[in-house]
Formats: sequence, structure tokens, C-alpha cells
Amino acid sequence: MHTIPFNKPHLTGKEAHYMYDAVYTGKLSGNGKYTHKCQQWFENTFGFGKCLLTTSCTDALEMAAILIGIMPGDEVILPSYTFVSTANAFVLRGAKLVFADSRKDRPGIDEASIEALITPNTKAIVPVHYAGVACDMDVIMDIASRYGLFVVEDAAQAIDSYYIGKDGSKRALGSIGHLAAFSFHETKNIISGEGGMLAVNDMQFADRAEIIWEKGTNRSSFFRGEVDKYGWVDVGSSFLPSEVIAAFLWAQLENIQEIQQRRISIWSKYVERLSGWSKANNIALPFLPEFATNNAHMLYLVCTDLEQRTALLNRLKDNGILAVFHYISLHSSPFYEQKHDGRELHETKRYSECLLRLPMYYDLTEEEQDKIINVLINEK
Amino acid sequence: MHTIPFNKPHLTGKEAHYMYDAVYTGKLSGNGKYTHKCQQWFENTFGFGKCLLTTSCTDALEMAAILIGIMPGDEVILPSYTFVSTANAFVLRGAKLVFADSRKDRPGIDEASIEALITPNTKAIVPVHYAGVACDMDVIMDIASRYGLFVVEDAAQAIDSYYIGKDGSKRALGSIGHLAAFSFHETKNIISGEGGMLAVNDMQFADRAEIIWEKGTNRSSFFRGEVDKYGWVDVGSSFLPSEVIAAFLWAQLENIQEIQQRRISIWSKYVERLSGWSKANNIALPFLPEFATNNAHMLYLVCTDLEQRTALLNRLKDNGILAVFHYISLHSSPFYEQKHDGRELHETKRYSECLLRLPMYYDLTEEEQDKIINVLINEK
Repeated sequence: MHTIPFNKPHLTGKEAHYMYDAVYTGKLSGNGKYTHKCQQWFENTFGFGKCLLTTSCTDALEMAAILIGIMPGDEVILPSYTFVSTANAFVLRGAKLVFADSRKDRPGIDEASIEALITPNTKAIVPVHYAGVACDMDVIMDIASRYGLFVVEDAAQAIDSYYIGKDGSKRALGSIGHLAAFSFHETKNIISGEGGMLAVNDMQFADRAEIIWEKGTNRSSFFRGEVDKYGWVDVGSSFLPSEVIAAFLWAQLENIQEIQQRRISIWSKYVERLSGWSKANNIALPFLPEFATNNAHMLYLVCTDLEQRTALLNRLKDNGILAVFHYISLHSSPFYEQKHDGRELHETKRYSECLLRLPMYYDLTEEEQDKIINVLINEK
Repeated sequence: MHTIPFNKPHLTGKEAHYMYDAVYTGKLSGNGKYTHKCQQWFENTFGFGKCLLTTSCTDALEMAAILIGIMPGDEVILPSYTFVSTANAFVLRGAKLVFADSRKDRPGIDEASIEALITPNTKAIVPVHYAGVACDMDVIMDIASRYGLFVVEDAAQAIDSYYIGKDGSKRALGSIGHLAAFSFHETKNIISGEGGMLAVNDMQFADRAEIIWEKGTNRSSFFRGEVDKYGWVDVGSSFLPSEVIAAFLWAQLENIQEIQQRRISIWSKYVERLSGWSKANNIALPFLPEFATNNAHMLYLVCTDLEQRTALLNRLKDNGILAVFHYISLHSSPFYEQKHDGRELHETKRYSECLLRLPMYYDLTEEEQDKIINVLINEK
């Protein structure tokens, strides 16, 4: 039986060519031609203040945690329904995690629950734009402003997705918080295998971001001729990726419009054809609030209960279709259960048990998608 | 004028082919076929306990710092004459750095000075095998054993280099300490652009190393069928590199013998032809102790003073040859000067001011090397 995988990395055709070029140009370590091209493209296209490619979204989040000065005892508010890296980046700096519940209508953080979680130790809010769907950034930025908190957008899934503010302005996700982190892992819309990026929007962090990125040295200043030698001036790590990774990414960015069109077309067909079936079975399709655009990162279903999800996953599997569930709530994980304050997070638990993701990638054929849809709606 | 660069990354010819293969196999994120091939090759070839590729040597050192449980207040003994990452990895976990001086006869840590630096807070010793030349590991492991300390070998420059112990055994550098970190940065003998590896020799760390590598999850156990679901069980980060990076590295490892032969031949010619001139000018050539083999990572000269070095660097530069100095001592860096305990480290200062590195890479031609040597010995 022909198997339909959950994900298949899409190649535009130019990846190997650009990697070849990077290799034979002889500049293989980071911060070279392709790194600069990608960073400038992101700044110009989405209005990010300053971009720095990283080896992963995890690393970008770690840079953010260092930049906002997380110290042991500081508290960070984040959703429990997220990837471990959202949490680890802050735990590594000694933060105490304060987990917020998800919304009833979508897995994103329940914005209305945030304010009650703030204490004098709170330092940051980390909204995760789940499935590329915007959190209500006006609400979150307003809270942050009133309490003097930093906002780090976990935009791992949110490339080419926008937030339309109360004032009508349309801003790219990742351009609104003080800092934002993106992922180019092979499961994302735009990929480089492993890879990520930090977007710095609060420019007070721009110089230090570059230093931390360069292992705590002022090497970049040195090469711009701003200082006469470079040395160790701060903490830091080796956050920058090889040029071959940036070269790969560049081939993807050149084709982002085509990639996004195709994904949106697949996503829309799912929603259209599954609409009746989902209502009849009390299964929720992705909900987009008015202020959010759709980047077609993910097609998820929210089942009524765990049994229904298990049955669906098994039915798909029996037909050679690999659908998958997603996060296991972090507040009840082996690592954090004892450190969590005991609050129950009902919606988080529900998404952990009931959310299911369908295959959703550029190279999914019409026939394959038809098969997936038919297996679902025909219940055979 | 034809310029001779300080370094030129060497390509074996198969890098692009293997990267192509990785790309078109469709497995681009980490921990795939090429990652496994490289890791197994290292374990088999050098007798490391367990190997995990990382995105940089920095990341491997950070993994080591997490694994040995560095906590705020713990002290780590390391040379001051080293790259910032040796230090940053431990600073990021809250360690206090205790800087040791270098030896008189070579830039490696003065083994005889270590014991006096130990306090009840000391947790680890981090010897750096500068220029791929072994530190006296019997001495260091004996101290560590008597005081219950961990040894993390910074083997960034030390691939294919060995230590011959008092018992006559010949062991690869990186296989002796509890943990070791390697670099495949484009300036190293074996490269992948940016890249590194953690070698775990004390197998008590093996399982946790894999978890930390996989972002604090037991995902690897899950894929081996040891647990029925995976979740967040520990701190961690995204330390693993893309498969394209591992594919690049594999092409290099296949050719390590040829690469090493060529480098040793270049290195030996330098030493032979510069011998008389260096003695006459009171300039030291690399010193190899009896217990160390030579991996020809670096050809360094130690001048009499800063003036002599500056004059040599300028003379080479005027002839289109890019020679460079190396580390600026960490204990007197802007970042750590105030935190250092004030001890003067005379040898460290001397190497900071007097050490000079000559171009030393696979593709350096006979003619180029002759020119470099002639510019030095003819003093014109």
C-alpha cells in the first residue's frame, strides 16, 4: 500500500546549487554571503528590526532569554501547549515557568488569563503563534507595557503570517514583540533542515544580540572597523549556522510565494471538504480570529475526546496515512509536574488528548489529499 | 600580488555529492543516516564511548557543562589562553572560572599549577589540547580522581592526536576525560563549516547526553521502542546539526588519512626549514612532549616579544601572506577582568603577545610555502 507520510520536506530545486556555490566559494562557517542575504530579506520583507540566523529556533529562544536578562527566580508566562524548546530556553537561564491555559476556540494562549498570572517576579510573556495563527498581540503588548514585561514571540510556525491590529495595521508575526524566534526545521513551511532565526524588534537589544551570537565577542564590530581588536565582552554561544544552511534557506525564500500558494490551496481544500463531516461529528476545524491571516502551516482537527482521536488516527493508519497528535502538556510532563503550581489547565489537556494533525505539505498530490479526505468522510 | 590566506577550507570532492544525497533522501533534520555514520566512525576509530554530533564545539562544551551538573558557584579550572567558548559554556551555567597559566614550553595548561587552584567548590578541570598537542592527561586524570573532579577535554583542535600514557598505552585525545568536545569549524583539520561533537567516555552520562541533545526529551528512547511515548524529561537544547552538515562531514572523514598526511608534510617542512632561523632569532617552534603525537593542526611561532611579532606579521603581510596571532587572554578580557582573582598569568600574557600562526592548510602549494619560508628566513 502507498503510504502518505505526515510530512515531506519540499525542495525548490535550487538548494543544492546554492549549497554548492557556498562550498566552492570557500566560505563555509557562518555569517557569510548567504547568511546576509537571508537576514536582509527577512528584514525587508516582514519589517523585523534586525535578523540573525541561528542553528535552530531553540537557539533563537535561548538568545532571547539571555538578551532580556532572565535570572534565577524570574518568572516567564507561556502556554503549556507548546514545544519543549519554548520552555527549555528559559529554564536554562534559571526561570520559573508559569503555564497559561490555551483558548477554547484554538490552542493559542488564553490572552485573558495572562494578567492574573503576573507577580512581581514576572519578566516576560512568551506567546506561541500555534499553527501560524496570531495570538491577540494588541492585548498582550498592552499587558506587557502596563507591567513592564518583555514579549518574546515564539513564531516557530508563523512565517508569512500577519496580525491585524485594532488600528487596522497589518503587521507580520514576529515583528511585534520585543524579540521573536522562527524555525526552519524540515517540518515548517520554509526549511533548512535544522535552522532558525532571531528577530530583534526592540533595537536596544540589537548590538548585544550580535555579540551573543558571535560567542560573546565583539567580532562583528571589529570587522566593521568600529573597534581595533575584538575580545570577550559578554556571555554568548555559537548560535550562527554554517553558510551551507543559509544557502539552502535562500533557495526556499526565493520561492516563498509559490510555496505559500500551494499550501493555502491544500489547506483550503481540507477545510472546504471536511466542513460538513466535521460538524456532523462534533470535530473542530482550525479557527482563525478576525485579526489573523492564514499561513497554512498546519491542518489540525480537534476531536471530541481521546477515543475519537485514537479511532481516527487508527483508521487513517490502516489506510496508509500517517496523521499525528501534537504536544503533551508541559505542566504535566515528568520534568515539570512537581514544579508546576498545581493549577489545572483544562483546554491544554483537551488539545493534548484531542488534537490531530493531517498530512500538510507542498508535495501532497491531489490524489493523496482526496484519499485522506475520503477516508475521513466515508468512515471506511 | 598573489595573496596567501591564513586558512582555506579543503574540499575532498565528495561533500556536495553527499549533501545532495541527504537533500534528495528527504531527511534533512538531524539524527539521520549521515549523523549515525559519522558518530559510529568516531566511536570505532578513536575509541570514544558514545558520540553525538553538535552544531558546534561550543554546543558540545555546553552539553558537557549541563551533564556534569554545573551550578551557580561551582568552580571550573581552565587555561586563560583559549577560545571564549571554553569559558562561556560554563559561565552560562553559573560557574566561576578559575584560570590556570600556560606552560613555559607550550601554550597548554600548566598541569603542575592545577592542584593549588582546587577549592571545595571545584567541580571540573577543562584541559585544552592547544594546537592538537596533548596535555599530560595522566597527571590531570590523577588529580581529578583524587579530588573527585570531572575532566572535560577541549579537543577542538585535537582530532587524530594521541596521548601516550605512563603505562605505554596510546589513547586518542578526547577518549580520556569523562567528556570531550571537538570542532569541525572551517579552520580545523576536518571540517563541516560550523560543527562539533561531544564524546562521552564516562558512560554514566550516555543516556542523559542523548536526552539533552534531543531538547530534553526521551525521543531517541521512543524511536528505539524503549518507551511508549516521549515527553519532556530534562533540560536540553537543539544541539544536533542538520543532516546536510553531517553529510559534508562524512566526505571529510572518508579522506582523513590523506588530509592528515598532507598536513603533516607541510608542518614538517616548516619545522625543518625554519629551525636554524628560529634558533638564531630566539623564536620558538612548536614543542611536542614525548607523550604527544602530532596532528599538524597548527604551525605556530613564539616570538621574543610583541615588537618582534608585529614586525614579522607586517613583513609577511607586506609580502601578501596573512599570518595571524591567536587568543587574547580571557582572564584580562573586558568581560572577566573584574571577576578574575587577580593572579598574574605570565605565560598566558606571553603567548597572547608573542604567538604567531603561519598559513597551514591542505591546499597550500609547495611554491606558496616556499615563499612564506623565504620571506621569514631571508628577512626581506
